[in-house]
Parts: sequence; C-alpha cells; structure tokens
Amino acid sequence: MKAIFKSVTAFAPATIANVSCGFDVLGLAVDSPGDRVSVTLGVKPGLRIAKITGDEGRLPIDPDKNTATVAVKGFLAHLGISVGLDFTIEKGLPLGSGMGSSAASAAAALVAVNHLLGSPLDRKALVPFALQAEAMACGAAHADNVAPALMGGLVLIKSYNPLDLITIPTPDLLFCTMVYPHIEVKTQDSRSLLKTHLTLADAITQWGNLGGLIAGFMKEDYDLIGRSLVDVVAEPIRSMLIPGFEQVKAAAMDAGVLGCGISGSGPTIFALSKGKPIVEKAGKAMSTIFDDLDLACSIYTSPVNSDGARVVHEE
Amino acid sequence: MKAIFKSVTAFAPATIANVSCGFDVLGLAVDSPGDRVSVTLGVKPGLRIAKITGDEGRLPIDPDKNTATVAVKGFLAHLGISVGLDFTIEKGLPLGSGMGSSAASAAAALVAVNHLLGSPLDRKALVPFALQAEAMACGAAHADNVAPALMGGLVLIKSYNPLDLITIPTPDLLFCTMVYPHIEVKTQDSRSLLKTHLTLADAITQWGNLGGLIAGFMKEDYDLIGRSLVDVVAEPIRSMLIPGFEQVKAAAMDAGVLGCGISGSGPTIFALSKGKPIVEKAGKAMSTIFDDLDLACSIYTSPVNSDGARVVHEE
Repeated sequence: MKAIFKSVTAFAPATIANVSCGFDVLGLAVDSPGDRVSVTLGVKPGLRIAKITGDEGRLPIDPDKNTATVAVKGFLAHLGISVGLDFTIEKGLPLGSGMGSSAASAAAALVAVNHLLGSPLDRKALVPFALQAEAMACGAAHADNVAPALMGGLVLIKSYNPLDLITIPTPDLLFCTMVYPHIEVKTQDSRSLLKTHLTLADAITQWGNLGGLIAGFMKEDYDLIGRSLVDVVAEPIRSMLIPGFEQVKAAAMDAGVLGCGISGSGPTIFALSKGKPIVEKAGKAMSTIFDDLDLACSIYTSPVNSDGARVVHEE
Repeated sequence: MKAIFKSVTAFAPATIANVSCGFDVLGLAVDSPGDRVSVTLGVKPGLRIAKITGDEGRLPIDPDKNTATVAVKGFLAHLGISVGLDFTIEKGLPLGSGMGSSAASAAAALVAVNHLLGSPLDRKALVPFALQAEAMACGAAHADNVAPALMGGLVLIKSYNPLDLITIPTPDLLFCTMVYPHIEVKTQDSRSLLKTHLTLADAITQWGNLGGLIAGFMKEDYDLIGRSLVDVVAEPIRSMLIPGFEQVKAAAMDAGVLGCGISGSGPTIFALSKGKPIVEKAGKAMSTIFDDLDLACSIYTSPVNSDGARVVHEE
C-alpha cells in the first residue's frame, strides 16, 4: 500500500453520547463544532505530533498518549504499514465537556490517514482503532462518541462483543443546541457515581424510550423523538453535578425544543429541535440561566450530521 | 348511537409478548391461531355469555369475570351506552400457554362490539378497555398482548402513563413458529420469580438489543432481527420452568430460524424465520425435543399479522 496524498486534513464533529435514553448504546453526531487533524508524510518513520492548538497546552504531545496518534498507530499496525507521519491537531472542542472531544481527534486523525493511504478501510472498520484510543484516554472503550464521529448520524451500539454498530437514519429537520457551562466533569468521576444496579421498573421505562427514539428517528416522527428523550438512569444522578440543570432544561423546553438532556457525562446540555429557528432561541434561553448563576458558558447550534468526519483538504 | 348490525363475529390472534428483548414493552401478533367471539344484540339489557367452547370448562361464564365481557363493559360505559348483548366465545388458544389467550378473547369481543355499533372507536382507542380486562384476569394491566392483538404487527408500549403505543412496520417475509408444551405456567408465578433489580450491564445489553430489534424490523434487516432476539432479563430465569428449553432453542436455531425465545411468560417457545419453509422445519425440530422428553406439545406456524383482530362475520 502506498500513500496517495502528501498531506490530508480531516474534520470530525462533536457527538452527543447516550442521547438521554440510550445510556452506553447511542451516540449522535452534529455538524459543528469539531476538531481538525492534519497529517503529512514525513521523511523519518514513526508518528509525531508537531503542534496542538486550542487545548491551552493540556493535551499530551507524546504520540503514545494522544488519542489521535494512538488510534492511527493501531490502524497502521492492522494494515502492516510502517510510515512516517507528522500531525497537527486543532482542537475546536473543549476538553472534558461531554461533547466527545477525545473521540473527535481520533476520528479526524483516522479519516485523514485512511484518505492519505487511498481509503483501504470504510468508516465502520475504523471504529475499533478509535475505540483503542478511547480506552487509553478514558479507561474504558466506549463507542458512543467514536462511532457517530466516524460514521455520522445516530449510531446504535447494539453490542460490544462482537462490536455491532447500526446506523439509524436521521430526520432532515433535526437540529441541535449544545450549551457548555465552563466547569469540568471527568467522565470517570461521572460514571463512578452511577449505581451498578437499577430497578426492573426503571429499566423497562428506559428501553421503552430507547425503542421510541429509534422508531421516532426512522419514522421522522419529531413528536415521538421528543417524548422519548427521557433518561431515568444517568440524568437523575449526573444532573446533580451541573449547577442549574433543571432550570436550563425547563428553559429549553419552554423555547420549544423536542427534548433536552445531558450530552455524554456532561456538563454540556443538549437539546434537539425541529427546524432551525428554535435552536437559536433555545441556546439563548439556556445560556441566560447560566448567566444568572454567574457561570460562563459556550453555545453551539448545528444541524444533525449524517456523514461523520470529513476530509477538508488534500494535496 | 345505534347498532348497525344484529350480530358480528370477530377473530383475534395469538400474540408473542416481550419478543425476547422487549420485556413488558413489545408484543407481536401472528395470523393464527386465535379466538373467535360472536356477539348478538339481545332483547334484555346487560351482557351475557351464552357459550364458551374450547376451554374445557375452565373459563368463567360470569360476565364480570371473563375478559371478553369485562372489556366490553368498560367500552360501553365509556360510550355511555346501555345495550343487551349475548356472547359466544370459541377459544382457539390454549389457556396459560403464553400466547395471549385472555387478551385475544378481549380483543375479539371489543372488535366485534365496536363493529356492531358502527366502529365509533379506532383500534388503538380500544386498547384501554382490553387492559382493564387483563388487569382483572392477570392482576396487572400489561399491554404487550392486548395491543398487538387489537392493532396487529409489532407494537412498542413506549410508556403506560400515559399509554403511548407505537406500531412498528413488520417485514413481509417474517414467519413465526410457536411450540406449546402441554404444561401450565401461570403468568403471576412466572413473574414473581423475576428479580426486582438488574445489573446496569444487563440493562445496557437489553436496550442495545431492543434498539436493534426495532431498527431490524424497520429496515427489513432479517439478520439484525435475529441478532437482536436475545433476552438477558427474563429468559435465564423463566426458561428453568420449561423442560428442554435449551435443546428446543438449539434445535430451532439449527433449523435456520433467525432467533428463538419464550412467548410471554411461557411455556410456549416462539421462533421467527425469514420465509415459510423454515417455520415448518423448525416446528418439527422443536417438537422432536419435547417428544423425546415424553412431553406432548402443539405446533403452530403462521405469518406475522399486520392488522390485528378482524371481523369475520356480520349480519
């Protein structure tokens, strides 16, 4: 196998893990924001990170510790290729925000290197390498960010062993508001709070909603999507780590969103809407609550993304 | 409101509650077997059961204790109608088999009386009255038999409060084998064995499969349907009440079915197949295991039914 390009840049978007009712089994990609990874053929063998921007110096430049290069290392080992590559990572996603920041860097890096090599693998086949990187970064190999970051749209992780990923078509008018309050929630802390057991009654409620959300997406039934965005498992516990969560959610619902919940392990709060006007209105209403609490926040609005990471430059 | 017909007969089919991964939230209707209920305008007001056949004298003839008449009583009260009706119930479904016998009688009775009165309500609107009858007969108002018996196809009970029923389109080539070993498992006994709590890991497995089953039905992806027919919640416990369960399941899988599990609370074992030839083969293979255990059984094969209970005679 030979490189087709000298240099490729790819973009991978933010992702909403869980999507309320799909704890550990659902992830949804949006169009923006996201991370950009540029990869250039180097003269010396091995992977090097030349530069990382947008991370305030917090991410490791060591290629054995950064999700972008760890993912690519596994990918190259799988292909049996030894090649020299220089990486530049532009973080558009805040770290520890619950928007799939580590997954986006891994996805963008994989898509860039795969394209540089003439696309030997399809998107789904890249997921296991991004999973390895997630396991290194987060201590557990969850696919609910990396799968949608690579494949786009709503992805159901039907099972992990074997890895069984199902893409669910997304309705055209689905838009997303994400509001990220500037506090940090570590995935591992947020996960350790969760109970190891749940009542059968809560589990039944959750799988009723999960079924409703999948059916709602496939039937393009926006009202059903809204009724299904309910989480009785993680949200009641994780929301305690987010100041003002209930008021922010109420403000989003008042603004006319279909539903609202915690993106991944938080602290970002997401809301889905039918049509573009509501996402802007919801973003303002949600951020006003954080303003009242003297908590800085960033607002993002975006269509749902159906293609995942994309190549933005090649030469 | 006035009666349009003097006499109507309706048929309601067997139903498979849970469908492996959808404990308490999914039910699937087949075409046959089923129950027939005939209703005739009487001269005296009130509901009377003239005759029940096929139940070996086990069902109550008291209209306050039979699911058919209890359901109709609620329906007439809702409409504010006082009318005299005579019922004949032909049980085609064995009692306590896990094939939705009590639900089928209630569904057939409701559809017959609704038709006799000029169809004031649609199928979905009839479900609450059948639920009242289930609550009387089984001690709990589960909709996973009555909803598919009335509405047909695969029905998701997204929530009970409020009652939110979602019909999922069924693939054309989906067939069902049901093998009923002649032992009785009471729903209440079978339910009391279940644990009140489950591990988060098992719950995640279950909702991954539930999502996969819904997506499989909607995408007409038979292989995905098969991979999703997995139950880690009820089957490991309830299967202990069914002699030879594991061997019967293995025989069905060897015969080429997509998946196999317990119908409702059992003891009937169901298997879904793509295409008609496999259902017959599976039925034989499954019943051979029961034969070897000297356990009599009945075999039923049928397409999946997409319309639910149907009127078969009017005059």
